[in-house]
Parts: sequence; C-alpha cells; structure tokens
Amino acid sequence: MKRLNVTNEDRLLHGGDYNPDQWLTYPDVLEEDVQLMKKAHTNTFSIGIFAWAALEPEEGTYTFDWLDKVIERIESIGGRFILATPSGARPAWMSKNHPEVLRVDSERRKQLHGARHNHCFSSPYYRKKTQEMNAKLAERYGKHPALLMWHISNEFGGECHCDLCQDNFRSWLKDKYNHNLDELNHAWWGPFWSHTITEWEQIESPSPIGESAVHGMNLDWRRFVSHQTIDFYKNEIVPLREQTPEVPITTNFMSDNPEFVPFTALDYSAFAKEVDVISWDAYPAWHNDQEDTATLASRVAFLNDHFYNMKHKPFLLMESTPSLVNWHDVNKAKRPGMHYLSSMQMLAHGSDSILYFQWRKSRGSSEKFHGAVVDHDRSSDNRVFKEVARLGKAMEDISKNVVGYQRQAEVGILYDVESDWALKDTQGFGLKTKQYGETLQKHYQAFWERNIAVDVLSKEDTFDSYKILLVPMLYMMSEQTVKKLEQFVKNGGTLVATYITGLVNESDLTYMGGWYKPLKALFGIEPTETDTFYPSDRNAVLYNGKSYEVRDYATLLDVNEAETLGTYEADFYKNTSAVTKHTYYNGQTFYIGARMEDDFHRDFYGELIDSLGLTAPLDATHNRGVSIQAREAEGRQTIFIMNFTEESQPVLLLETVKDVQSGETVAGALELAPYEVRIVEK
Amino acid sequence: MKRLNVTNEDRLLHGGDYNPDQWLTYPDVLEEDVQLMKKAHTNTFSIGIFAWAALEPEEGTYTFDWLDKVIERIESIGGRFILATPSGARPAWMSKNHPEVLRVDSERRKQLHGARHNHCFSSPYYRKKTQEMNAKLAERYGKHPALLMWHISNEFGGECHCDLCQDNFRSWLKDKYNHNLDELNHAWWGPFWSHTITEWEQIESPSPIGESAVHGMNLDWRRFVSHQTIDFYKNEIVPLREQTPEVPITTNFMSDNPEFVPFTALDYSAFAKEVDVISWDAYPAWHNDQEDTATLASRVAFLNDHFYNMKHKPFLLMESTPSLVNWHDVNKAKRPGMHYLSSMQMLAHGSDSILYFQWRKSRGSSEKFHGAVVDHDRSSDNRVFKEVARLGKAMEDISKNVVGYQRQAEVGILYDVESDWALKDTQGFGLKTKQYGETLQKHYQAFWERNIAVDVLSKEDTFDSYKILLVPMLYMMSEQTVKKLEQFVKNGGTLVATYITGLVNESDLTYMGGWYKPLKALFGIEPTETDTFYPSDRNAVLYNGKSYEVRDYATLLDVNEAETLGTYEADFYKNTSAVTKHTYYNGQTFYIGARMEDDFHRDFYGELIDSLGLTAPLDATHNRGVSIQAREAEGRQTIFIMNFTEESQPVLLLETVKDVQSGETVAGALELAPYEVRIVEK
Amino acid sequence: MKRLNVTNEDRLLHGGDYNPDQWLTYPDVLEEDVQLMKKAHTNTFSIGIFAWAALEPEEGTYTFDWLDKVIERIESIGGRFILATPSGARPAWMSKNHPEVLRVDSERRKQLHGARHNHCFSSPYYRKKTQEMNAKLAERYGKHPALLMWHISNEFGGECHCDLCQDNFRSWLKDKYNHNLDELNHAWWGPFWSHTITEWEQIESPSPIGESAVHGMNLDWRRFVSHQTIDFYKNEIVPLREQTPEVPITTNFMSDNPEFVPFTALDYSAFAKEVDVISWDAYPAWHNDQEDTATLASRVAFLNDHFYNMKHKPFLLMESTPSLVNWHDVNKAKRPGMHYLSSMQMLAHGSDSILYFQWRKSRGSSEKFHGAVVDHDRSSDNRVFKEVARLGKAMEDISKNVVGYQRQAEVGILYDVESDWALKDTQGFGLKTKQYGETLQKHYQAFWERNIAVDVLSKEDTFDSYKILLVPMLYMMSEQTVKKLEQFVKNGGTLVATYITGLVNESDLTYMGGWYKPLKALFGIEPTETDTFYPSDRNAVLYNGKSYEVRDYATLLDVNEAETLGTYEADFYKNTSAVTKHTYYNGQTFYIGARMEDDFHRDFYGELIDSLGLTAPLDATHNRGVSIQAREAEGRQTIFIMNFTEESQPVLLLETVKDVQSGETVAGALELAPYEVRIVEK
Repeated sequence: MKRLNVTNEDRLLHGGDYNPDQWLTYPDVLEEDVQLMKKAHTNTFSIGIFAWAALEPEEGTYTFDWLDKVIERIESIGGRFILATPSGARPAWMSKNHPEVLRVDSERRKQLHGARHNHCFSSPYYRKKTQEMNAKLAERYGKHPALLMWHISNEFGGECHCDLCQDNFRSWLKDKYNHNLDELNHAWWGPFWSHTITEWEQIESPSPIGESAVHGMNLDWRRFVSHQTIDFYKNEIVPLREQTPEVPITTNFMSDNPEFVPFTALDYSAFAKEVDVISWDAYPAWHNDQEDTATLASRVAFLNDHFYNMKHKPFLLMESTPSLVNWHDVNKAKRPGMHYLSSMQMLAHGSDSILYFQWRKSRGSSEKFHGAVVDHDRSSDNRVFKEVARLGKAMEDISKNVVGYQRQAEVGILYDVESDWALKDTQGFGLKTKQYGETLQKHYQAFWERNIAVDVLSKEDTFDSYKILLVPMLYMMSEQTVKKLEQFVKNGGTLVATYITGLVNESDLTYMGGWYKPLKALFGIEPTETDTFYPSDRNAVLYNGKSYEVRDYATLLDVNEAETLGTYEADFYKNTSAVTKHTYYNGQTFYIGARMEDDFHRDFYGELIDSLGLTAPLDATHNRGVSIQAREAEGRQTIFIMNFTEESQPVLLLETVKDVQSGETVAGALELAPYEVRIVEK
Repeated sequence: MKRLNVTNEDRLLHGGDYNPDQWLTYPDVLEEDVQLMKKAHTNTFSIGIFAWAALEPEEGTYTFDWLDKVIERIESIGGRFILATPSGARPAWMSKNHPEVLRVDSERRKQLHGARHNHCFSSPYYRKKTQEMNAKLAERYGKHPALLMWHISNEFGGECHCDLCQDNFRSWLKDKYNHNLDELNHAWWGPFWSHTITEWEQIESPSPIGESAVHGMNLDWRRFVSHQTIDFYKNEIVPLREQTPEVPITTNFMSDNPEFVPFTALDYSAFAKEVDVISWDAYPAWHNDQEDTATLASRVAFLNDHFYNMKHKPFLLMESTPSLVNWHDVNKAKRPGMHYLSSMQMLAHGSDSILYFQWRKSRGSSEKFHGAVVDHDRSSDNRVFKEVARLGKAMEDISKNVVGYQRQAEVGILYDVESDWALKDTQGFGLKTKQYGETLQKHYQAFWERNIAVDVLSKEDTFDSYKILLVPMLYMMSEQTVKKLEQFVKNGGTLVATYITGLVNESDLTYMGGWYKPLKALFGIEPTETDTFYPSDRNAVLYNGKSYEVRDYATLLDVNEAETLGTYEADFYKNTSAVTKHTYYNGQTFYIGARMEDDFHRDFYGELIDSLGLTAPLDATHNRGVSIQAREAEGRQTIFIMNFTEESQPVLLLETVKDVQSGETVAGALELAPYEVRIVEK
Repeated sequence: MKRLNVTNEDRLLHGGDYNPDQWLTYPDVLEEDVQLMKKAHTNTFSIGIFAWAALEPEEGTYTFDWLDKVIERIESIGGRFILATPSGARPAWMSKNHPEVLRVDSERRKQLHGARHNHCFSSPYYRKKTQEMNAKLAERYGKHPALLMWHISNEFGGECHCDLCQDNFRSWLKDKYNHNLDELNHAWWGPFWSHTITEWEQIESPSPIGESAVHGMNLDWRRFVSHQTIDFYKNEIVPLREQTPEVPITTNFMSDNPEFVPFTALDYSAFAKEVDVISWDAYPAWHNDQEDTATLASRVAFLNDHFYNMKHKPFLLMESTPSLVNWHDVNKAKRPGMHYLSSMQMLAHGSDSILYFQWRKSRGSSEKFHGAVVDHDRSSDNRVFKEVARLGKAMEDISKNVVGYQRQAEVGILYDVESDWALKDTQGFGLKTKQYGETLQKHYQAFWERNIAVDVLSKEDTFDSYKILLVPMLYMMSEQTVKKLEQFVKNGGTLVATYITGLVNESDLTYMGGWYKPLKALFGIEPTETDTFYPSDRNAVLYNGKSYEVRDYATLLDVNEAETLGTYEADFYKNTSAVTKHTYYNGQTFYIGARMEDDFHRDFYGELIDSLGLTAPLDATHNRGVSIQAREAEGRQTIFIMNFTEESQPVLLLETVKDVQSGETVAGALELAPYEVRIVEK
C-alpha cells in the first residue's frame, strides 16, 4: 500500500486558524505570535477566514498588505498557510448596498445584517463578488510557495427562502422531474390532502407558515439546499481552478452538535466529490456526564472514519480546541493528557493534521472564551500551551510514520444522509427515539471495542472489498441500493440490517406490497409491524441462552426461509422471532428486529468477528476503554494504543513491537497510564 | 323506549375514510379494495374528504368520473357512502388565484399555501366557492340511493385574524353589546390599565404582539371564532339543505389531544344544534405509560358520553385507528384484542358505527404510517386486518341489538366549554394545575367504576331527569345557570360542586360581594380563599374517619347552614371544613373544597350511589377494570361486559343473562379473558 | 445620626394603589372604600396609575372631576395621595391616531395596541403628550395639601427597535465613541467575523433576525435602552419640576421575577440619581417549595438593602400584596402572620411604607385574582383584611420609632448591573449556572444569619466607610473600579472576590496579559483556568480542616504572594489552592476560587466577622431563621427581632431591651412564636 499524501507536505500539519486581522492595531501581538508559533511546534496556519472586512474595507477598495505581512511571518518560521476565501462572513457595507445577499428565513423574514454564514446562495451579486475576491486572492497568493491549500468559505450550512431561491428550487424540480408535474405529484404523493400541484409557480419551499407536511417536498428541499450550497461553492472555486489548478481545495465539514453525529444540513457525500481534500471541525464534549470517555471516544472514532471514507484517504482535522469551547451548555476544560490523547486518536483514524480554532483567543466578541493555543495571558507556560507544544513535538517525531498512511477495513457501516432526512421528517414511530446517527454509533462501537477497523460508507460506495456490511435503520432504500446489497451478499458478503430498515424508496414512498420484495428474499423474512415503546416500556430478547434488554423498537417478523437466532421474551409477540439469519447464495444476512442493549452488539458482532476471522491490527488483550488503531503504507503499520479511561490499564501484547517514539522494543505486559498513548510498529 | 336510529341504516356502520383519489393511477389497487372491503365486513365509506384537487383540478373545470366509479364499487358490495364536502383542504391554484382564502395568524402573518384546515372563515370567495362545489355534489350525488349522509368539510378548527375577520369580529361585538361601547367596556372591565375602547375600530383580535390580557375580550374572541366557524358551516350546507333536505348532515368533531379531554377550540354544544348527527374522531393512546388501561377506558367513556349527550341520541364514530396513529409522541400498536374491545366500548356508549381513518395506508406524505385497515402489504392476513374483520363480523351479528338503542342515566356531569376558555385564560391559581377536563373525568370515573351511567351535559341542557348533577370546577356561572341549579335542587336533586366553582359570571366578571349570593344559600357556605399548592405541597381531608390526600387546591370555607362532612388535617386551616352538605328545599348540595385523591371520589360517590338507590345495568360484582354498560330500546337492554385489564377477571353475575353472540345462557361466575368483551341481554 | 425623612410625613405610610377609575359606575363602592380605608388603618394612596383613558377619554378632552372627588375622599380620612402620571398605559385612541407611539420589537414587528408599558421611548409625539398631561396634573393638583409625591409612570422597562430608536441609538454611540468608528470597532472587537462597521448607518440594534453575537454591541444596546428610558422619564418630569419644585418624585422600581434578584432591564444605579425617593414593588413567593422561609427572607433582605443603598436613605415599598399574586406559576396565599412579619421586615430594612397593589380587587380583566386589601366579598372581616388592619395599627404605634430612621453597615457587597448584562450575554462557562444575582444573595446570607447589616452597593459608591467589601463574580471591572478597590484595601479594607471576577473591562474586552495586572498584585495570585462543571460534577475544598462541597465552578490558581487557606480535594488540580489570602498595604484580600456550599460562607465569613469585630445590633443568641435588624436615628436604635421559621424559636437576650409596642422590659430568654416579630429598643 502506497502512501497517499493529501497535502504537499511530508510532515503532519500542526497549527490552525490564525486571525491576525483582529490584531492589526497590536503590532507586539503579531510579533509575539511568531515566537509562540515556534515554541508550540506549529507549522501550518489557515488565514483569511472571515477577513472580508479587512480585505475590502469599502466596496472596490482592497487592502492586502496586512495579509502579505502575515504570510511573511508564517514563512519566517518555515510554516505553510492555508488560504481561506472570506465568503463565510460579508462586511456590513455589502448588506447595506446589496440587500439581495441577505437571507430570507423559512418564515419569510428578510434577515438583517449580522452573525455569519448568512448569505443567500443564489444571489447573483454575491456569486460575482466572491469570484472577484477569490480571483484577486489567487492572483496575489496563488503562486506563493508556502500556500498549501485553498479553504473555501467556512462551515457551509443554512438555507435561504428568498424569491431567487424559490425560482432556483422550481428549476431544480423541473430538471429532476423532467418538467412533468405528474411525476412530481406522484413522488410527493400530491393527492393526499389535495396537495396536487398544477403549475410550477404554486410551489413554495417548506415553511412553518405554509407547507411543512409534504415529506416528498421536504426531502427535495433538503436536496436542493444541499445542491445549491455545493453549486455556490463550485462557483467560488472557478477562479482558483483557473489560476491555481495545482493547489488543492478543501472546505471544512462538521458534525451535528451537541449530539456529535453526522452533519445533516448538507449531503457531504455529494459535496466530498467536489473537494480535493476532506477536512472537518471536531468538538467532542470530553468529560461530560452522560457517557464514559470510552463511549465518546468510540463516537469520535466513528466520525473520523466517516470523514476518512468520504474519499477513502487521509483527511485534515481543520478545527479543534486544545482546551474547551464556549458554546456548549457546559464548557469544561480538557483534563491533562486528554488533548494529547484525543489528537493522537484523530491521527490514528486518518487525519494528517491537528489544527485549532483559533491560534489566539480574541479579546472581545462571541468567542473570546473559546479555547485557543495562546490564552489571554499570552504565555507559553500554561497547561494548555505546554500540552499543545508537547503534541507538536510528538507529531514532528512521528510524522514520517503517519503522513499519508492509510486505513484498511473489512467492515463497512452505511450512513445515508438522505435517509436521515427522510426518517427525521417522517411522522410515525417515536418522536424522540429515532436517533439514526446514535444507533449507527452503537453498532460501530462493538467493532471499535475489538479494535476492528470499520469504514463508514455512503450508499454510493462500492461494497465489494468488505466482509461485513451494516445497514442499521437504513429507512430509505432505493431499488438500486437494494440491488447493490443483493449483489454484495450474493458474492459472499455478510449483511446486517435492523428494525426500520428499507421502508421507503428514494421519494419517501413505501414499497407496494409491504417490505420491498427483494429485501424479503434477501433476508428470508417479512417485518409485519414495528412496535414503538413508551419511555418506560421494556422487552427482552433471548439470544444464545442470554437475555438482552430491548427499548424503543421491536419489529414483529414473519419468518420465511430465515433461521431464528433470537426471540422476544415478553408481550403479545413473546417467543416470536427477533433476530434472524439467512443464507443467501454465497453470503448471509442478519436482521436485528429490536433496539438492543450494547451487550447484545458485543456478543452478536463478537461472534461474527470470530467466525469471519476478522483481525485487529495487534494481537493483544485488554479491558474495555483501550483502543488500538492502525494506519499503514509501504508495508509498514503504525499502531496507536490508546487508553480512554481514567485508570491505568494493563495491555497484554502477544506480539513484539517497537515504540516509534522511544525506539524501545515492547512485548508482553504493558501498563498504560490514564489517557496514555503508545505508538508502535511491528 | 323506541329505537332512535340516526342513520337510515338498520345495521351498524363499519368502514371509514376512503381516499381513492390517492390511487387513481393504480387501477389494481382500486379493484383490490373492493375485495378487501368484503373480507373486512365493511359497509360504509366516507369519500371526498380533501378531494378538491381531484374534483376541480383547475378553476372551473370539474371531474367527477373517478368519484362515480368509486361509488359504483362501494355499491357493488352493498355498501353506502358518506359524501364529504372537500372544503377541508383547498387546491393550490385557489390560494394562488385568490389569496383572500389564506389565513392570517394571531401574529398577523399572512399564511402561505400548505397543510389543510387553513381557510379564512370569512372569505366571501371561499364561501361562494364552497357553495358552488357543494351544489354540484348535491346535484350529482344527492339522490343516489347509497348516499347515507353529508360529511361537511373535516375537523373544523383554527382561526383567522385577517381584516375581513376583524370586521366580522367587530360586527359580532356590536350585535352582542347592542352597539353600546359602555356595555362592552364594562364586560371587558375596560378601565383597568386604561383599556377603555372609545371607537369600535380600536378593537383588534387578541395577539401576542398586541392585546392578550383582556380576559373579557379573549373570551368574546373565542366565542366569535366558534360562531364564525359554525356560520361558515351553515353557509356550506345551504345548497345541500335545498337540494337534499332528507339527507342528514354531520361534521366530524374531535377531542383535545394528547390530553384526551373535551375539544376547546369550538363550542360544540352550539355546533351540535346545527348538525343532524353527531360524529367524532377518537384517538386514545392505549397502552401508554402514564395511566392504566381502566383509567384511560373511563376517560374514553366520558368523551363518548359527552358526544352522545350533545343530541341525547346515538352518534357515529367517524374516525379511529385499527392499530396506531402516527402523530403521537410515541405511536404504539394496539395489543391483540384492544381494537375489538375499544370498538365495542364505543358501541356500548352509543356509537352506531366504527369507522376508520383511513381505509388504506398512503404510500407517501404525512400520514403514510398512520394505521389503516389495509396496510402497505395489501394483505388480509395480518393481525390488524383480521381483527378488523372479526369486529366487522361481530358488528353484523349484534347490529339488531344495538343500532338505534339509547342510553339512560340518572347522573349528569356538566362540561361547559365557555367556562373552560375562561378558566384556562384566567390569571391566578396554578398555571399547570387547572385541568378542568381531567378533573371532570376523575369525578366521572367513580361512577364508571360502579357501572352507573353518566350523562355529560352542557349548561343548555335540562337537568330535570337527573338524580345527581355534578358541576366540578364550574368556574363560570351565569345567573341563569345558577337559577337552573337552584331549581334542580329545589325539585329534589342532588348537586355536587367543588373548589373553583361559580367564581365569575358569563363575562368573566366576579360577582359583587364575593361568592354569588344564591350560591351561598344553595350550599349553605361561603368559600373565603382558594389555597393553591406548590407541586410538592400536600394536605389531607378527614372524611368518615378516613384520611384522603389533597393536592393542588384547598378552599377555605365559612360554613353557614351547611353540615361539615370532612375537615382539613393540616396547615393553618386544620380542622376547618373541607367537605360540606346542605339540605335545600327537597334536594341537597355537596361542596368538595379540595382536589382529592381518587379514593375519595370512590367512597364519597359510592355513598351517594347507595343512598339514592342508583343501579347498574346488571347486578354483578367484579374488580376495578371491568366495565358494564348498556344500551336499550323497545324494552330490551343490550349489555356490554368489558375487561379493561391485562389479566383475566372474574365477574359474579347475580342475574341470569343471555349471550347475544352465542345465544348461551350465562349466570353465576364468569371469567373474562384479558380485554375480553361479552355482550348479553337479560 | 439625624432622621432622614424621605416623605413629608411623620408617620409610616400605609395604603397603596387605588384605582377608582375602575369603579366610577359603582358609587356605593367608592363610598364603601372610605369606610374600609379607615378600618384598615391606611393613610396613603397612589392614584392615577394607568388612568389616561379616564383623564383624556378622547384626544384633547380632559376629565378631572372624578379624580377631584377621589382626592376629596382620601382627604376626608386624613389621608395623603401620591399622584401618578398615567403614561404607563396609553388609551387606544392614541395608538390609532398616532401609531408612532407603538413599539417595534427586536424581530422588527410593529406591535399592535394592547397590554401596557408599551410605548416607544423615542416618540416625539408621546414625549410632548406626556408633558402636556403632566403639566395639567401639576397645575390642578400640584398645590394640593394632601399631595405627597409624584409617581412617574409605572415599572419602567422594555425596549423599542423602531427607526426613531435606531437613530437615537446611533447618536448615542456617536457621542460615546467620539464620532470615531475605530473606537467603536475596537470596543466591539469588530474585525472578528468581519463585523467591522464602516458607516454609522450600518448599525442596527441587536435582533434574533440580525446581529446578536457582538457582545460589545449588546452591552451598548442595554446601556442605550437604559439611557433612553431614563431620558424619557426626565422628559416626563420637566413640567412637574417647573410647577412643583418642592414635591418629591419617585418611580416604582422592581426585582427580576421569579428569580427574585436585582432587576436587569435597566441600570437602576443611574436611574436612582434622577429620582428623589426610591420606591419598589416587592413580590416574593413566600412558602414556595424550593427554599425555606429563612433563605427567602434573606434574599428579600438583600433586595431591600439594595434599594436602601441606591440613595443610602429610607425608601418606600410602593407595591406589595397582602395575600397572593396571580402571575406566579403557583399563587399561594400568605400564611397567617406572614404578611405582618414580611411587612415588618421591609420596615426593618429601611422602608418607610407598606403600600399595596391594589386597594380593591378588580371585577374583571387580568388581575382580578391578584390579592388586594378589599376582596370581592367587600368585607372587613376576612383573614386578609384583618391582618392588614392589624399591621396598620402596629405601624401607627411604631411610626415615631421608625420613620426616617436609617441603617448602618460596615459590610458592603457590590452589585453591578453592567457586569450582570455582560456576564449573562457572554459565551462560555455554564449556560445555566452563571447566576450572578443568586450568588450575591448566597454570600449576603452568611452575614444576615449573623445579624450583621450589609450595604448592597454599586460601583459608583464610595467604599471608604466599610470594613469589608465583597465583589463576588464581578466579571466586568473597569480600570477605574480596580483602582477604587486597590485604594480601599490600601486604606485597610478587607476585600473578598471569587471565581469569574475581573475578567473583562467595561467594553467586555479581556485584559491583555490575562488577569488584569493590578488585580494580580492586589490578590497575590493569578487565576489560570476556570473549570466549569457538568450538573453532576462535584469537587471539594479543604479549609480549616473541614471539607466543603464545590459545584459549577472551580478556578485554578497560580499563587504568588498570597497565602493558601483552602485547597481542592479532587481532580487534576487536587491539593492546589482554592482559597487564598493576601495582605496588601494596610488591608487584606481574599479570593474564593470555587462555588462553595453555604456552610463555607458561614464559616469563612464568620471568622472574618469575629476577627474584624463586627457586631450585631443586639447581643443575643438564637437559631438560624431568626433575624435581628435595626434602624437608628437621633441616638436611638429600633430593633426588629423576627422569626422566619414555622417553629417557635428561643432567643437569649444578653442585653435588656424595651418592647416598643407593649412598653415592657424584655431580657434573658425570649420565645418567638412562628413568624412572630418583636420590636424593641435598648
């Protein structure tokens, strides 16, 4: 396996968002920054994010001098810069002079100037203006030797309901439905409640003061918003591609917070195709009081694997905090060691960088208490700075073992944002218990605890290389997706589905005849009812002689060719099938009809892991909370052994390895201190 | 007692909302429907609800062919149809061409097209247009032999604050207050906070961005909205009355959900006068985790008795679900037997039908997972379909014993929607603990558990025929209502009132001099203070040597001529009167000053039942959770013995009866399986 | 110490809001009022509040006759009146004829007429009109011998975002920032997120549909709203000052409810300078289920001391309820004795009045169930009326010992509303755990329980006369404030600060270099991190050998010259300093780094009280829940001994005193009945 270096750098990137435009009147601060950057072992800075007001203080007047100097300073320490286009926040003069750029919200209220990430994605003026700005940036900095990458705008998201967007929505629909309203009405199930559309002009985007219950339209609106956002992005990059075809382009993706599950405002699997490098902003709430550290670590791992697999190659951690954020309900500081550990986890899962928002804490405004490398004390002696520097040093040491190294997995789990949209929107089941993203993370966790690598896939991916594919709660399945799954199993794959899987097609229409026929054949069963539980309701499933608690959902099954592995222990469907297995051509399928406790996943997937001979990167035994993950390239594996608990953890190595940092040989019993990381190779 | 058949049918109606306009492009589905209708033992379908877009796809172009064919199909199985006017949902072209039909909400935002039940009740265009549509329907189908009834629009509700409605509100006020602003200002207690109105044009409907604290105005607004809605309905039926004077008219009423208490958006007691047949849509949340099945059954019984007594004759269950809904927070399936049991309870309480929303589950849009007779599997073999068919068969068997049979009660409980409006709106007491509807249901339950029939009455009803009348929490009492109550007691009636009873007159003005003088005489007491409790506050009442817990409210009383039956056990009013009795002319009155636990109601009303010699329809003993209810006509009683528990229940019959379904004689010990129903006659 | 009589009366004021304009059509009620006023021992009534509709029923037509008669009646019982300007509620005709007076809310929605306290503070029409009205009132009643005071409008608050207010906001900003946008941009930290303002016209007030995250702007907006409100008030009083320079002026202040902490909508410390007499409306929720009576009593005491110290002289209780309010979530009646006790507490803390809202309960509208002296029963025999009359009699008896008597304290606690605004608005820490006002009340309580008087101060006050000054959570500190604190300590004062103190300057900008340098010197420490806890997180501090629980916040400290008094017991900062002491020049400073349980405050401040020799007004021992407070003048002290518990309480007097009411000598053991008050002098 060759190294797949996503940047032009042969070192891990360490640094982050640098916003010197806040400090232009503080020359001592700018000088100090250079010294501190060196001390912190940083080498890469994202600049220009939100700098429009500094770059074009009045319409048509551009000022790049300050940015030139910033770049000089970064260069002076051998650093590289990621240059952002400033479109994430417009200057006030633009909203005043060109109100067209302001969004209209779903209640049809024209927004006032304020906040950020608030421009209409359709506005012709803003599209023209961002191209002009970007052309100027490309012209001035595109050939700069220290330019590493383009960072387009910032954390794209949101939507606009202005007249321009309404027109674009209608055009998009005309294209999609072949200018045929019958097709649209069928997809939207128009005749229900007399919602038949007879002229395109009757269509208005969903609104709390208008239409919100036509699920097909809501779904298309989400698709359109995603399309339009990506289209805006594509418009932005035109001058960059023209002038700097060799400079890679990224834009920073996100998770949904505070749930810490995949982002749902946009279809990232589509967006990923348009960027050269995936990058994301990760803000997990370490040390919270709802889950233990290992559980959260597993969920962080899931998201990293999600972003890794968008392009199946290393990605960048574009934003993170060395200490705390300031926008959670409770903003708790990372405990000593956690920043080092959690950053190493990112690297273990495929990141080629640890970058921060932001380099230096602001003096004022809304993020002045958001953790940064340089605190208000301007000191390199405090706990946070020292941990950042320690990490920076370690990253330098391990760079050659990590940069461009890849990840291999024999297990795939499918996350489909369109299904997420449709399921969230659908009326039915339990309003608060759908939790699609969280459910995927729970299934993923069973593999993470066994150190088995998992790829988080989209429905566009090819599944051939996997031994197991999980599709929990994949509510929406097009005929095409079903065909892919069929083929996967026919070829010998193992497929696992659950309750609320495969209920509707890509228009959120149920299949005629109940569960889609090919699914019945594939699983050898037919789900007949989904029982939804009240919060205090419980059932249990007897599986392999052990009883597992069930909450929220239980599917009633008609079992045809399948074999029953587990049965319900209570209620009117007591003793009926809850978990089934079906051999199909060269493969096999499993159906888990109920929402099971974690122990079931451990036992069930544990057996699958064993029977299919899946192996962890390192032969070792340890308690829950230790995670071992590997990256590999050029025949070498770099293995991260991480302790995500607050206690010392014994790890018994059954192979002899070499500590990458110390060079020591390590074998047999190993004791990991709380939050400790060891990086080894065989 | 003669049978009082509200339909022209001598059979119980079984069927429901049929929306074939969703399936016009699926001819096989339409054919299949006919077969399944027969299998399900159905005979009646409501059609055309929300079908405007299918009936008039563009302005002025009408298409009735599809409806003709639907009716033919229904006829082909010997079925009847209830024809709906389609005004519950306008087509999109109408909103586009005539924006006047769109509502303006209380924040004065013109609504966009969308959802349903969303037309301005004042719009001259829509009033003219609905008449045109209805005239066409009457013309084409009014003489059809299978036409059973008109179903006007759907689930009327909501309000509009547009300029037309503002004008109508002012006109309504002018009529009410004799064009005299002094009268209005007195009723609204205008001088408080300088709210005196000096010109009619100053009046604007209540609004969160305007006036919301003038209780008299809020109350009049609620009255106006109710009036205007009924007026819209009356406008709709003009062509029907003209062309089909012999066809009865209904519109489907509702409950307030999820509380499952009487509907408060409209004054149904006024609306009831304008319809020929009462019908309602019942969606209780069976198997929820907040109350046991018997308690919910009692509350369902209450609502049935509420609708029965709107016209004191049998009614129709117009909508229900055979399985689950999709708009509760948790949408749980009915357990086996529950659909049969809960439907039988409807019949026991006076319904002449079990109708469903909807016949067939939609493929798409907002109600695709709402339970229906035909599921997406299109099968007659699933649990739900089979239970529907079993019920249908049973209904055929018992039809002659039930249709048109009436209910008799010696106990009345008064629900007054105007009092509900005023009490909900009033500032004072506990914001979350008023619970007027729930309180009525708790008092009702004591009788239900003893199988004593109760009529739920409005203040317009005559009370002469009752032995006991309950007026719990009847906050608002006009002088006229008080006179009626006085007369009722004078004539020998037993009247029971509680805390927060009789505090204001019909304008929400308190009576001068404290409690209204005639009430003091009637009850022989004077309430001096209403003590309101914090959630964890408790008191107790000592009554007949037993202590009962008190929550939420405790009234302090000056006892004059009354006798004290119960006293408080704690707080500064310890040992003072909590429950009193007063003999007044030939009758007696009771005042329950505090919110008591259920056991008090059981004991207190139990004694009343015994002392007044009220009898259940069947002499039998059983545990709580079994309910025995009767309907009678032509000298025969049909008695439903129902087990609303999850356990088998012994019932000891002290009379010999005949099982209506099996023809067997039944006497002595009877064992009811969980959820079992036995229908017997003496 | 001389008496400082804030009214022209030598008696305590007893009475309240009298709104006879509600009763003009009830002449018997008006006559009855006079009789009841005498019976209730009342002597003072606030009239004309909200009477604009009665005073000017149509534009330009004035009717004062009814008010003349009301004043005659008050005079007839020897009473005095406080005359209100009616601007708190406009008549409907004015909104109709001059929509300019209607507010625009932050979402930029023009409000409709309704409610009260709803006029634009900028409206030129309303400013002119209130002057006209007030001039007429001054002309007609300004020389009346029974006129005690002017009461301007009512409970000022709220804000308006109309174009006039936007212009005024911009003008105010221009003045503040010397017409220099660079200054403004620096204060608002404009370059962050490109929020640089380049033309004044770009500025719009904060809005949920515009800008809400620029903390500097939010802060200036709050300052402007406060300024503009006071400016409106100053405009109102121009004709009064001209015509009646000798009549004192007040306006009724409030607390924030239901938290019962200082009011935050306006800067009362600035407003206080513009009134002659402080008055406030107190509505504590006695007998609630979240805190014991003593705790609430301590918080009431805090607020009284807050209002007392706004002018460092006696104030008026302008509104209170003798029984209950009707706008809490739970509206519970005061228990017997509580009205007397809680009123006496007000007098003990510096009030020269007990006034009620309102004299007589309304028949209708939004406050008809708000407690009043005269209930709907019109009786003088009920519990509430009798307790009011008992209090009135007692007030007559003690008037000469109380009126104009002052309060002395050696302890000050600083409440800064600007810091409150900034801290509430800031992103960071715990969203729900900032609780600035509540925290001050907790520190205050430790002194209250020891009967040590505390002055609640603003940052404008001089601190010289205090031995101890507490500045808990004083998040925002200008350089000037820090200088004052430094000087206070240099001169021998004892200063106590806590976590989240001194983090930003007056523009909500952090200090360069971490904690402000002079603060580091003053406290001998440097806070390095503020650890924020999840709800279930706990730590503990070991102090003087005892362990105290910590919640919510823990500050990590670098200790320089300071001495460590307490250390953390857990987490990664175990054994590091939590509480420190530093001797600075002639004084000393303490820093409490964590949010401690109440017992810590008791022990910590107890030691300070002892070491500094602070003394209570009476040498006595008693349990928690008894409070002893004193007022003094002309060498005499009047001491209130109050039992804020539901049990009898022994008090051991170590001094001999005389009971002011009975004249008896009291010494040694005293037993206070529940809620009992004894008023004594030495």
